[in-house]
Amino acid sequence: MKQPCLTWLPFLCAEAPADLKTPQQIARFELDQASGEPVGLCVRPEMGDSFWIEKKEGQFLITGGETGVLYGAYRLLMALHAGYPVRLGTQPSAPCYDLRMINCWDNAEGTVERGYSGRSLFFENGWFDYDASRIRQLARMMASVGLNVICINNVNVHDPAHKLIEEEWLPELAKLAAIFRPYGVKLMLSIDYAHPMRHGIPTADPLDERVQQWWMQQTEKVYHAVPDLAGFLVKADSEHRPGPFTYGRDHADGANMLARALKPHGGKLIWRCFVYNCMQDWRDTTTDRPMAAYIHYAHLDGRFDDNVILQIKNGPFDFQVREPVSPLFYAMPNTNLALEIQLAQEYTGHQIDIYAMPPMWKEIFRDLPPKQVMAIAAVGNLGRDDNYTGHPFAAVNLFSYGLTAWDPGCDPEECIRLWVKLTYQLDEQQQEMLVALLMNSRSTYEKYTAPLGLNWMVTTHEHYGPSPSGYEYAPWGTYHKANRDAVGIDRTKNGTGYTEQYPEPFRSLYASLDTCPDKLKLFFHRLRYDYVMADGRTLVQRIYDDHFEGYEETQAMAQTLSQLDLPSPDREMAQERMQRQLKNAHEWCDIINTFFYRLSGVKDANGRTIYE
Amino acid sequence: MKQPCLTWLPFLCAEAPADLKTPQQIARFELDQASGEPVGLCVRPEMGDSFWIEKKEGQFLITGGETGVLYGAYRLLMALHAGYPVRLGTQPSAPCYDLRMINCWDNAEGTVERGYSGRSLFFENGWFDYDASRIRQLARMMASVGLNVICINNVNVHDPAHKLIEEEWLPELAKLAAIFRPYGVKLMLSIDYAHPMRHGIPTADPLDERVQQWWMQQTEKVYHAVPDLAGFLVKADSEHRPGPFTYGRDHADGANMLARALKPHGGKLIWRCFVYNCMQDWRDTTTDRPMAAYIHYAHLDGRFDDNVILQIKNGPFDFQVREPVSPLFYAMPNTNLALEIQLAQEYTGHQIDIYAMPPMWKEIFRDLPPKQVMAIAAVGNLGRDDNYTGHPFAAVNLFSYGLTAWDPGCDPEECIRLWVKLTYQLDEQQQEMLVALLMNSRSTYEKYTAPLGLNWMVTTHEHYGPSPSGYEYAPWGTYHKANRDAVGIDRTKNGTGYTEQYPEPFRSLYASLDTCPDKLKLFFHRLRYDYVMADGRTLVQRIYDDHFEGYEETQAMAQTLSQLDLPSPDREMAQERMQRQLKNAHEWCDIINTFFYRLSGVKDANGRTIYE
Repeated sequence: MKQPCLTWLPFLCAEAPADLKTPQQIARFELDQASGEPVGLCVRPEMGDSFWIEKKEGQFLITGGETGVLYGAYRLLMALHAGYPVRLGTQPSAPCYDLRMINCWDNAEGTVERGYSGRSLFFENGWFDYDASRIRQLARMMASVGLNVICINNVNVHDPAHKLIEEEWLPELAKLAAIFRPYGVKLMLSIDYAHPMRHGIPTADPLDERVQQWWMQQTEKVYHAVPDLAGFLVKADSEHRPGPFTYGRDHADGANMLARALKPHGGKLIWRCFVYNCMQDWRDTTTDRPMAAYIHYAHLDGRFDDNVILQIKNGPFDFQVREPVSPLFYAMPNTNLALEIQLAQEYTGHQIDIYAMPPMWKEIFRDLPPKQVMAIAAVGNLGRDDNYTGHPFAAVNLFSYGLTAWDPGCDPEECIRLWVKLTYQLDEQQQEMLVALLMNSRSTYEKYTAPLGLNWMVTTHEHYGPSPSGYEYAPWGTYHKANRDAVGIDRTKNGTGYTEQYPEPFRSLYASLDTCPDKLKLFFHRLRYDYVMADGRTLVQRIYDDHFEGYEETQAMAQTLSQLDLPSPDREMAQERMQRQLKNAHEWCDIINTFFYRLSGVKDANGRTIYE
Repeated sequence: MKQPCLTWLPFLCAEAPADLKTPQQIARFELDQASGEPVGLCVRPEMGDSFWIEKKEGQFLITGGETGVLYGAYRLLMALHAGYPVRLGTQPSAPCYDLRMINCWDNAEGTVERGYSGRSLFFENGWFDYDASRIRQLARMMASVGLNVICINNVNVHDPAHKLIEEEWLPELAKLAAIFRPYGVKLMLSIDYAHPMRHGIPTADPLDERVQQWWMQQTEKVYHAVPDLAGFLVKADSEHRPGPFTYGRDHADGANMLARALKPHGGKLIWRCFVYNCMQDWRDTTTDRPMAAYIHYAHLDGRFDDNVILQIKNGPFDFQVREPVSPLFYAMPNTNLALEIQLAQEYTGHQIDIYAMPPMWKEIFRDLPPKQVMAIAAVGNLGRDDNYTGHPFAAVNLFSYGLTAWDPGCDPEECIRLWVKLTYQLDEQQQEMLVALLMNSRSTYEKYTAPLGLNWMVTTHEHYGPSPSGYEYAPWGTYHKANRDAVGIDRTKNGTGYTEQYPEPFRSLYASLDTCPDKLKLFFHRLRYDYVMADGRTLVQRIYDDHFEGYEETQAMAQTLSQLDLPSPDREMAQERMQRQLKNAHEWCDIINTFFYRLSGVKDANGRTIYE
């Protein structure tokens, strides 16, 4: 039997005995095993997830709620292990969001949609299939960074995953929940909106009494098996999924119907807002995909029950390298909202290319309305690979996600440094080389892939590698309309009007070429190749420069990587992936430059090679 | 049990009894069933496939070889049924090519590579699986138009199709051969060049004695089961298939080794010349894919054994809508050559769009050196669909292929008219509407898809629908390098030098802009958008015009189709496919025009809508 990989928790060794059932017991066990000195615990249930740490008579004392003491224990252990001073005092550390979720896109047949870390941790061949020890380790990893909900199945509920809420599957679901429970992690399930139609009900109309009744009864059965289930996650009327639109109902009707079935059990209904026309005619210039979520949802503000949470992707498109914050976050003051980000590197390198996300998240939180969002979800980057995340460095995103979900104000570099300290035994110089490499990795990736907020020049479907016009005549609403003179979509009020969906100051900031940041200019504006950017360079020269720099920085990154004394197998895995990243960066650089050179006819001002 | 579809043979009803074993017996049976009058047969074995028909004392008399009388019988019956005069006299009708082959790309698991007519007629689930009555009907269809060889498995030999030559599969193979045999149709098999390595031999080096020995012995076993097997078909060193290059041997070494194993049994070794670098770097301008076959094979002329036949695709690329004839046909006077065409509509509409091929073949045969080619093969368009060919009109290609393989000088329009007469009971006006529709279908398809010999603007992998830059940065060697000023590859001696592979008069014809036909201009030349074509229009205007015309012609075609009194289910099937063709033609038209408008900035001279 293989020792489970302990990722950033190598200082934790023995696994907790199976008879430990509460977070407090786990906290006690972990502290006894790993702290090296006596630590006191004081549970005040009313504190929930919060905790504080004091030092009394030379001994640490953690005070917190039932889960709070567990979070406190891990924070203390990590600080001690990293050699960091422990933050002491009775000012509680409390999470910014009550629900700190991972959304796994795992299919019952064992694949993971947009998964780059091997097959599903939970399923194989249309049924549960997991290594309990690996699941326990995952629960431990989640608890160590404060994550408390995991949705185990894909939002695209492919047959037979809908059965997760059926009688036959519930006993097994209960067993899985029992593994996570001592770590304070609750299960969530993605459900099939049209599920009642599989049971003889001829409709899924949310206002139909038979439909309401079916969900009431079925939800009761689910909660009988898993009383602390966090709730249901729903992707409806999106990319060919069924939903209330089929019955002429709106999404408040649809979500509230399900929320009422969950309400008696304290469950939440998470409703994704990723709704747009995925059958757009490319000739249609009146439809602008980034506007879709706002159009579908803003007018429903105030209509949702109090246990409904609308889950909105950080940007208005779909997890691109750089997007502005979705305007929908500013438009629903009377609705519970959740932020959805993506750890799976769908558009950001497939866990082949190095892409540390904390600097990107910092930008998102800078622009997010402070009190509007009350939950956070991240599409998982997990799989059956020994290290859970494919690329060993991709674990930094899972780790930092937990810390960020707890405190969005945390410093990206500190998150990354802590992960490096906990994961590897490097001397300080090497440690800082790796921290810098990770800190810069997103900027490098952006340079060699997406010009200035343009996005979607990626290979269709697969989303790895360049295809500058791959989406140009496709039905997905993702066009750049590059021609011989200019590129981009005018999204100001002179164009599609997307900027009008923003409140001030964002509306003016983005709408004006004078104030719109260069890095987002092509998201909001159509620009001529000879347009002069804020830094004095022309648009096309800036595209060339960024792409050459991106490739050069990747080469430097490879150089740095080869100098790091990483342990096996991480060293070999990172090196092998770096060879693929270099090839990818080279292709992106040359192809995007050639694409714009062919269109513009403008040569590189510095005489570098751009292929004909 | 379903009555097998009789396609163009509806006047044949009863199936021959299973105890008829020879072509002569079949001929006798078919004539007795369907001629309506007594017909005499006279077999002169030395005449082989040839025959003549006389009228003696008011009675038809067919004289020919064992297979000749069968071919004569079908020709007579078809003429009588179509109401055509029977060509009488003692001048024998003899086939131009001894081997008139269909190459099925069927996989043992039941799929058909580039198949658009349902699953395999022969295999399912890794084993034989066929309806003997359907196979008999296929043999009848083949014999009726003079085809005499069928290769039943894909040239890409995917596991377990290699077992076709192994002991376990041979008894079943013999049963299948026995169904085809009375119709004069012989089986052929695609083999895996590296097969010996599956049996403990550590190499597939053609000069290794163990390898030679293995093939000798295995071939003997195959011929013991199927004594009249036509031979083996090989795709080696092509698109990741194994081959002699692995061992530093050339293709003469590789082919001759296999040919020597076949020789004692009278078998032929068909060696495909589809060899090129499918991992080309798009930046590499020194490699030009159309030059590959000539480079690989021309220097081997004279090195091949007399039972080796090199099978060359009609054009130097890969079954595009318009290509010049491959220069390799002119370069190997001392080698047996076969022409390979494709009935499967891989690049020509997937048997959704109507595409009758005889006019295209006429152009090929016009340029083919007369005595150089001694065999012909066509990639099949067959599958398990009731009508064998998906689109009911796609049968015209199978039918006409047989007639053309017999006599490449035959008139395309007459082939098509005969198919229409035999297949449908239409009045003469409707018959001629359908003949004209089919005759024009290739020109229409060409107009809305490929500009002037440019090709490869098709969706990658799938090869249906437009993707104007889909292959532009791919490893397949298929680039147009369109930029703001010009499009195409200069393949003259000033460019890649491809035209130098042709003998005169082709070399000068293609190399000079003055003489190169407009329809092939962009195959051979890089042209500015303002280049003035032979008809006085600019290149870009000609592209716009062709595409608008192609779509308009498709709309007219749909109109014609709706007026035809076709029988069910052909009527409904053709109508349903026409809706898809219309959509396809519309997309092609608008997308290609927009693509060139964005690049050139030139508006349509006639003010039609080209989208931004």
